[in-house]
Amino acid sequence: MTKPNYACDISQALETEIGPGGLTGPAFDAALKRAEGAAERLKQRHAAGELMLTQLPSKRDDLADVKVFAAALTKDTTDLVILGIGGSSLGAQALAQLIGWGLPGYRSPDDRPTIHLPENLDPLTFERLLASCDLRTTRFLIVSKSGGTAEPLTQMLAAMTAVEKAGCGEHLRHHFFVLTSPGDRNPLRQVADNHGLPTLDHADIGGRFSVLSNTGLLPAELLGVDGEKLRQGAASTLEATLTDDKSPVVLCAATTVGLLEERGVSLSALTSYDDRLQRFGLWFRQLWGESLGKDGKGLTPLAGVGPVDQHSQLQLYLAGPNDKLHTIITRDVKGEGPVPVSDFAAGPLSAYAGTTMGDLLDAEQRATLATLAKNGRPVRHLSVATLNEEGMGALLMHFMLETILVADMLGVDPFDQPAVEEGKILARAYLADSGKSAT
Amino acid sequence: MTKPNYACDISQALETEIGPGGLTGPAFDAALKRAEGAAERLKQRHAAGELMLTQLPSKRDDLADVKVFAAALTKDTTDLVILGIGGSSLGAQALAQLIGWGLPGYRSPDDRPTIHLPENLDPLTFERLLASCDLRTTRFLIVSKSGGTAEPLTQMLAAMTAVEKAGCGEHLRHHFFVLTSPGDRNPLRQVADNHGLPTLDHADIGGRFSVLSNTGLLPAELLGVDGEKLRQGAASTLEATLTDDKSPVVLCAATTVGLLEERGVSLSALTSYDDRLQRFGLWFRQLWGESLGKDGKGLTPLAGVGPVDQHSQLQLYLAGPNDKLHTIITRDVKGEGPVPVSDFAAGPLSAYAGTTMGDLLDAEQRATLATLAKNGRPVRHLSVATLNEEGMGALLMHFMLETILVADMLGVDPFDQPAVEEGKILARAYLADSGKSAT
Repeated sequence: MTKPNYACDISQALETEIGPGGLTGPAFDAALKRAEGAAERLKQRHAAGELMLTQLPSKRDDLADVKVFAAALTKDTTDLVILGIGGSSLGAQALAQLIGWGLPGYRSPDDRPTIHLPENLDPLTFERLLASCDLRTTRFLIVSKSGGTAEPLTQMLAAMTAVEKAGCGEHLRHHFFVLTSPGDRNPLRQVADNHGLPTLDHADIGGRFSVLSNTGLLPAELLGVDGEKLRQGAASTLEATLTDDKSPVVLCAATTVGLLEERGVSLSALTSYDDRLQRFGLWFRQLWGESLGKDGKGLTPLAGVGPVDQHSQLQLYLAGPNDKLHTIITRDVKGEGPVPVSDFAAGPLSAYAGTTMGDLLDAEQRATLATLAKNGRPVRHLSVATLNEEGMGALLMHFMLETILVADMLGVDPFDQPAVEEGKILARAYLADSGKSAT
Repeated sequence: MTKPNYACDISQALETEIGPGGLTGPAFDAALKRAEGAAERLKQRHAAGELMLTQLPSKRDDLADVKVFAAALTKDTTDLVILGIGGSSLGAQALAQLIGWGLPGYRSPDDRPTIHLPENLDPLTFERLLASCDLRTTRFLIVSKSGGTAEPLTQMLAAMTAVEKAGCGEHLRHHFFVLTSPGDRNPLRQVADNHGLPTLDHADIGGRFSVLSNTGLLPAELLGVDGEKLRQGAASTLEATLTDDKSPVVLCAATTVGLLEERGVSLSALTSYDDRLQRFGLWFRQLWGESLGKDGKGLTPLAGVGPVDQHSQLQLYLAGPNDKLHTIITRDVKGEGPVPVSDFAAGPLSAYAGTTMGDLLDAEQRATLATLAKNGRPVRHLSVATLNEEGMGALLMHFMLETILVADMLGVDPFDQPAVEEGKILARAYLADSGKSAT
């Protein structure tokens, strides 16, 4: 039996440990049985080769193409702008942050381009970003599975217009690279073909489950994050889920659905005690919200980070409505950071003598776990020893598989998102009304 | 009657407009009456000079000190690190983002230092940040009202230790500046006095309501954001609330409490269609969560941004449980951004000819509002014509006053946060257990 690259403790979600806010024994047993049933169906789909997601951890044949494409994208490149939104961006952001991207003090190594993942569509931000780059040595990667998503297409057109103004209009194929599905009816693919842009085929997997496909692994390669190790970490979670009746994924799915049905716990709050999981939290928000929120069902995801949320949301979490299942992600941080000079850690600060920042963070993450439980708030603890590629891969796979099991137990399809089409159609109509239109 | 620097439309939170998901007429009338009562009590406290928050918009006598202190902090400074957490940081982050700080492509102007607001306590991030700065020309501003908050004190000790290692240990008073309350029992104040550090007195107002005091205005000054205009904008909201029975603040407090009590709408979801309100959303999260989440009461805040959340949370918002009151903040964006070159906006992208990024954003923000309402999801619309200091000040004051009115209507004290003390005590105990301790 494979042990996943993280540990999981759900005991403090149970009534026996935390009192009336927790799941009762019979309700947990019943939910566990259903979660095991959902896991069994997952196993069957995996064995039948039906789910691309469960094939990815052992896949290796696509990595060579990713490396070749990444090498072309980064050759003589100062700035690399990745254009995509939602599932075409959030997984890449989560992986990029593993090496500190987007956190205070992060700078790209000298031998790598600066990576930008603007994602959102704001004209002021995008114009500022273009103005901050030397467009002669800037490359753009456009990621869209369907090739028809309005936001990255609009950003691409703005970037093409700026590149032409910078005098490089003859060389579009050196500036714009595309990751999209094959197919003649794909607008982005047509543009790429018309202009001779280098194109990589998007794996046949939907955005929010695509982080372990080339959608995530290409950005990972660009940043020096090892895609093979990510998949190894993901494989550890998958193997545990396929071989162990009481795997972390099964236990977590059971607590989620059990608490929802027995206690009306309709929010799932993820708090990470590592800065490098901030964007992971945003990735989780989409995965969870968009996969489960349908037919009037679903649980609202909350994502936050360690000490900051203690000073922001913990009051509400401890003393507000008891409507949340908490998941706290920690890693071993004790002893990290310098020991303060004893002249400074003296007088009113003498209590800090010999204490590192990691010691305080360690005490805080344990205290938050204990305080939530003491206040009868259900809480799960996921811990990784080291947050490296294997740990990140294991956590990514945990939440994707838990989402699929919970969807099965709630009776919703985790892979579609029918409700948002209405808003897209209306936006197109508004744009057309003002004498303009977009797909 | 003063008109505030923003417009507010709550009609799509009402049953008459959106059907059964909305507030019925009688429930709205009853909630409005209670909101008016809460506003009347606010007026009385304002007239009695009891609330520092309502004095700040007309205050000017503290601005000169802020400017002098800011000038000393920025003289010959390359990097300026502001250390604070929660209310001592979130308001500053919200104001900093008004000029694009923290967004893709933002760089400090050449004549100003680079501003860092790390806030969270992660040893890897903090070490990376220190390593990225030239410590000889880096200054640190420590913000803590009580002067006893463990996170910024720990960060300060790590920074002092690094500054000494860089050979500047004799010059601490040129590197460390302090914003804290007066008082002999304040540990940070004692440290400042012992080392002769420049110190500015923290205004006597709690963290999450302090953005318009020197806690927010000092960082604003450092970034070139005009504090006087922020206060003018805040004054517009305050004046409207004090003089108009049906002010936006009163109408919003009524819809919040009305929907909570009539429909069980226990989440308040803020979505901003301007990147420069991303940190504003995090500021709102603390304000709302920590002020209202007590005695088993409270509403859980959600904060997100425009098009990104359409591709992440909108499916859940439209088709999941109807448990959220949405607030959409927009500004006039139509026409912003370049018109794409017609050679590019051709063929499969011909629909984009003549369309700017601002046109698409405008269509999307309107479509999201309409689609939420059409799906029976209660939604409020706040709009500013231009997101400048006046607009930002008006929005900040809106949410602080609405929080106070909602707290009054729910019968909770918006200014305390009693539950989090337990976790702090436990963290100290864990730290002491490991042979170490901190206050």
